[in-house]
This record gives sequence, C-alpha cells and structure tokens, in this order.
Amino acid sequence: MSEVVLALDIGGTNLKGAVVDTSGRVILAETIGADDATAEPLELVRALLARLAGRAEQSGHRLVGAGIVTPGIIDPETATVLYASTLRWTDVPLGSILSDDLGVPVAIGHDVRAAGLAEALFGASSGAAQSVLVAIGTGVAASILTSGTQVIGELSSAGELGHIPAFPHGEDCTCGQRGCLEVYMSGAGLARRYAALGGESLSAAQIVDRLPHDPLAARVWADGIEALAVGLKTVTMLLDPAVVVLTGGVSRAGDALLVPLRRQLSESLAWRAAPRVETSVLGTSGGRIGASVLAFRAANRAEVPEQWTAATLLSPRDLTAAGAPSLQTN
Amino acid sequence: MSEVVLALDIGGTNLKGAVVDTSGRVILAETIGADDATAEPLELVRALLARLAGRAEQSGHRLVGAGIVTPGIIDPETATVLYASTLRWTDVPLGSILSDDLGVPVAIGHDVRAAGLAEALFGASSGAAQSVLVAIGTGVAASILTSGTQVIGELSSAGELGHIPAFPHGEDCTCGQRGCLEVYMSGAGLARRYAALGGESLSAAQIVDRLPHDPLAARVWADGIEALAVGLKTVTMLLDPAVVVLTGGVSRAGDALLVPLRRQLSESLAWRAAPRVETSVLGTSGGRIGASVLAFRAANRAEVPEQWTAATLLSPRDLTAAGAPSLQTN
Repeated sequence: MSEVVLALDIGGTNLKGAVVDTSGRVILAETIGADDATAEPLELVRALLARLAGRAEQSGHRLVGAGIVTPGIIDPETATVLYASTLRWTDVPLGSILSDDLGVPVAIGHDVRAAGLAEALFGASSGAAQSVLVAIGTGVAASILTSGTQVIGELSSAGELGHIPAFPHGEDCTCGQRGCLEVYMSGAGLARRYAALGGESLSAAQIVDRLPHDPLAARVWADGIEALAVGLKTVTMLLDPAVVVLTGGVSRAGDALLVPLRRQLSESLAWRAAPRVETSVLGTSGGRIGASVLAFRAANRAEVPEQWTAATLLSPRDLTAAGAPSLQTN
Repeated sequence: MSEVVLALDIGGTNLKGAVVDTSGRVILAETIGADDATAEPLELVRALLARLAGRAEQSGHRLVGAGIVTPGIIDPETATVLYASTLRWTDVPLGSILSDDLGVPVAIGHDVRAAGLAEALFGASSGAAQSVLVAIGTGVAASILTSGTQVIGELSSAGELGHIPAFPHGEDCTCGQRGCLEVYMSGAGLARRYAALGGESLSAAQIVDRLPHDPLAARVWADGIEALAVGLKTVTMLLDPAVVVLTGGVSRAGDALLVPLRRQLSESLAWRAAPRVETSVLGTSGGRIGASVLAFRAANRAEVPEQWTAATLLSPRDLTAAGAPSLQTN
C-alpha cells in the first residue's frame, strides 16, 4: 500500500486539492469554487479533504499527512491561520481541526511561501541559498529565503512586497496606505489604473495584449514596471538574493515584463550587478507542490521530496489531473 | 593564566583595538588613527594587534583568538575582506594573514553586522529573534536578523538600507544611484543638503542642535526623518521585525529623532502595528563587543559570551579603558 499525502492550495476563487504520491505526482485531484455562498469555507475545506482521503483509501493508498497552504497570516509553528481576509478566518487552528478529521499530521503554510519553497527546491531558484519569489496576481507578495531559511517575521507577516512604499508620495492603495507597489503593478492595480485613467474595464492580461497599439495600456504598464523595478532594487539592496523569481498571473506577460524590468533594475544600480530575474518554472503548481513538501515533512518523511524533480512534478499526467497548466507559456 | 581575545573595530577614522577577557571586559585598549599616510592600513592593523598581543602576554594573559570587524564587503566564511573602500582593500585574506601573525584563530566580520549581533545578544534587541539594527553615521547600513540568523546575502552585500530608493525620483546620491535613503538621512547627507540649500557648512550634530530655531535645519531634518520612516516602513513590510534599533552618531539626536520617526512610521501603516523603534544600548561599543563574540567563537569557546551582560560589557572600567563613551546620552 503506497503512501500518499493530501495537498490543498486555498485560493481566492478555488480550493485546489490533490492526492500526491511519494514521487510527487498528483494521482487524484479535485478543484472546487471557494466562493460557495451556501457553505462556510472551513466546511468546504473539510469536505473536500474528506472526499479526497476517502478516494485515496478506496484506491488502495495509505494517507500519511496533509499540507494546506493559504493566503493570509499563518503561524506554521502552531498550524494556525491567524488571519485570512478572503476566507474570513481569524485565529483558526486549522492544523488541529484537520488533523482530528483526517487522523494524520497536518502542516499549514502560507501559499506564496510554499510556492517559494517549491521553486527553491525544484524550480527557477533551485540551488540558490538566497532567493526571493515574487507572486504577482491580484496583489503582490514575496517569499524570501536567506541562507536556505524562509523569512517569516515576528508576526508571521514578512514578505509584503506589494505594500512597500514604491512611491511614498504616490497614489492611495485600497489597503489604506499610500504609494504601495501593488497600486501600480498587480492584476487589480493595473486594471484599476487603466480604468481610472479613462480606459475601458479590462483585465491585466487584456492590458498586456494591447501594449503594442494602446498608449494608455503602455503608460499603465510602464508605471507598473517602474514600481516593480523599485521594489526589486530595494530587495537587492536589503537582501542581496542570487535570483528573483516572478510568478502569478501577471508573470505570464513574459518578455513584455522581463525585458524592461531587467533593464530598469540594472540601470538603477550603480555599483553592483543585479540579481538574476527569472519567471517561475512551477507556475500555478508551486503552491500545491510546496504543500506536498510540507505534508511529507509533517508526516516525518522529509527525505521523500528530496528525490523530486520538476520534470516529474510537472508531468503531463500531473497537469491533466490537476487541471493546472504551467504559467510558463513563453 | 586567564584567556583573552583581541577585538579590533576598523573604522573610517580610527582603529580601535582591545584585549577582552572572558567576562567581556576590556582589560587593555589602544586606538590609533586609520589615516596614517605613512603606512598601509594593513600594516597599521598588524602592528596594533601585535602590540596588544604582546602587552596581553606580558601581563600574564593567554591569547586564544581575535575578532576583526570592518566596513565593506566581508566574506565571514573565508575570513576575507572582498572590498573595503576606506581601507583600499580588495580580496584581502585578512583572517589568514592575522592568524599567521598571531598564532590563534581569527574571525573577520562586518562592523554593522557585528554590532547587530552584539545588540541582539546583550542590547536593545536582546530576546528578539527578528530584529534590524540601523547604523546612521556618515552613511547608513543595517544588520538584519531573521529567526536569529544574520542575513548576509549572496555577495555578502545584504543590509544596504542606506541605498534603497527611498524617493525613486529624488536627489542623486554620491554612490551614483538616485533617491537613496542616505541622501536624506545620514551624517554626510544632512550636512550636504543643509549646505546645498544655502546653509553654512555644519555637521549633522550641529544641524540637530539648531532644530528649535533654524527653519532650514528643521526642513533638512524633516526630509531625513521622512526618508528614514519610508525605509523602516519598507523593512517592516518585507521583514516584519520585532524591533528596530538605531545606532551611530545621528542616533544620538535622541527624541528629536525617535519621536517624529515613530509617529511617521505608525501613521504610514494602515493595517498592522509598527515594530518597536529603540536606540542602541551598546552604542559605539557594539562593534568591539561583536568582534569579541566572534573571537571567542573562532577560539571554539562559543559558550563564553553567553554569560555576558550589558552591565558588565559597559562597566565604567571598560568605558575608561576603551575611551569609548556609550551613545546613550538621552
């Protein structure tokens, strides 16, 4: 009876659950909407995990652990979600609740930190002891690794790159602060500024598509690139990473993002080279892969993920099962 | 025969050497100018350490190690100074040179990181696993501790808080970059801006003295406070420290610095509390104390400094011997 873990990536719109074997492959997967108004998010999570656990056992596998990753403020030590706005959770001891349900050890992690861990183990920052993963989706958050260790912070709140004051005298952020990086460079920020400056209601992806022929799109995008370059310069000065890895929906812009970003970062540095800036290898699978690593570690099988490779983790079978294509489209 | 170490704090103007016993007390000290045009800095260092070692042995002590701290880019693993502009050193294997001279293990460290280590062990950030020491002297540099470990960076260049883009569209820095924090808040930056805006040639301390009755001093200082508040907000977002400790000459401004800085930092944060902001307990002795810790660790006596307390490290005897009053004047 082969051992498996549950990996759950809680997002703003979806709960992506998977059963992962010791090779890192997804053998069963189920994704459900996170915004089911008829059920509490916690009950959706418990039901999804129970279904996956039942299916895994029916197919002859033995569940040994689970890893759950979510946005918000997570205390990995106590496996508690201190605060998660999208889920409306405050001080939810998710680890102990789910461990009671499932009868196995459960690790709770921050979604972007889990993706950063996965990327550092198997992806674009593999081999680098100092790396920063920057997830540019609706908002912006970072996972920081120094000397191979993740920076969590005193209040489990490190990595809020989206809310550094990129332009201290800049525009107001929806968070209540001013000039935040994600005002300018994030899915929500790009869409909001494009509309506020007289454009239609477009998504960030649509704005990127229009770059070649739409001056307003080009302006909003240029401001975003500048804010992100300021952020990466700040990260370079403070943390001196070997590599910065970009992930999240906006990172799919590819060269339209990478080329001007790398140029501006380099030009803004006078006396040192820029760190490498790359796009993610694991893409949207990073959260799930990180959750799988946390699950095997919680199950006292930390050696299991050490054998994994991106090629296995992102195999066609995996992608079909998880329904999660890689971000790497270019 | 009691065991002692040599501690040397290499500064831009002085080389501060000391013989330190197992209680952390300075039993012998000698400070010489670093800008002796008749001698290479390396020869000054070697001669000073040889004299101190000789005096220690004559007075019946046994030398077991040495710790040298210096500004610049330091690789503590190889005990090499990769680059130090004030000393005109590039790739100097200082550890092995001095170890050959002295016949004991020699540790080489970064001066601000050593002060940060000392402050975290015995000073204002004692007990905090996440802390940032900000040294505001001629320039600005930071020592970052996360989960009790110092952030060094890929190129040993982490902690360059003075060169984050506090105001990306701001004034040019002498470093060649634009809008750097230390353009606005540093000893050199304050003096330069005061003169550039039409004032006399004054030191930062003189500018602080004039705050109550000199509008230009007040303006330059306010810009500096704003830049530093931007820097601490950035540090808070990225690293989430429990405490930020200010040291260096400008930190002697006391409440003129702390009161507006704490207020601006708090006001700039919309959804989280600010970390504590304190001034250093160890003051200018921090580099020497950190060097002593590194020396005992290099001598395989890591347990020795664990017994030290600030009260002992800053005893009157110590202060008289080292000729280094604490920064804590308020």
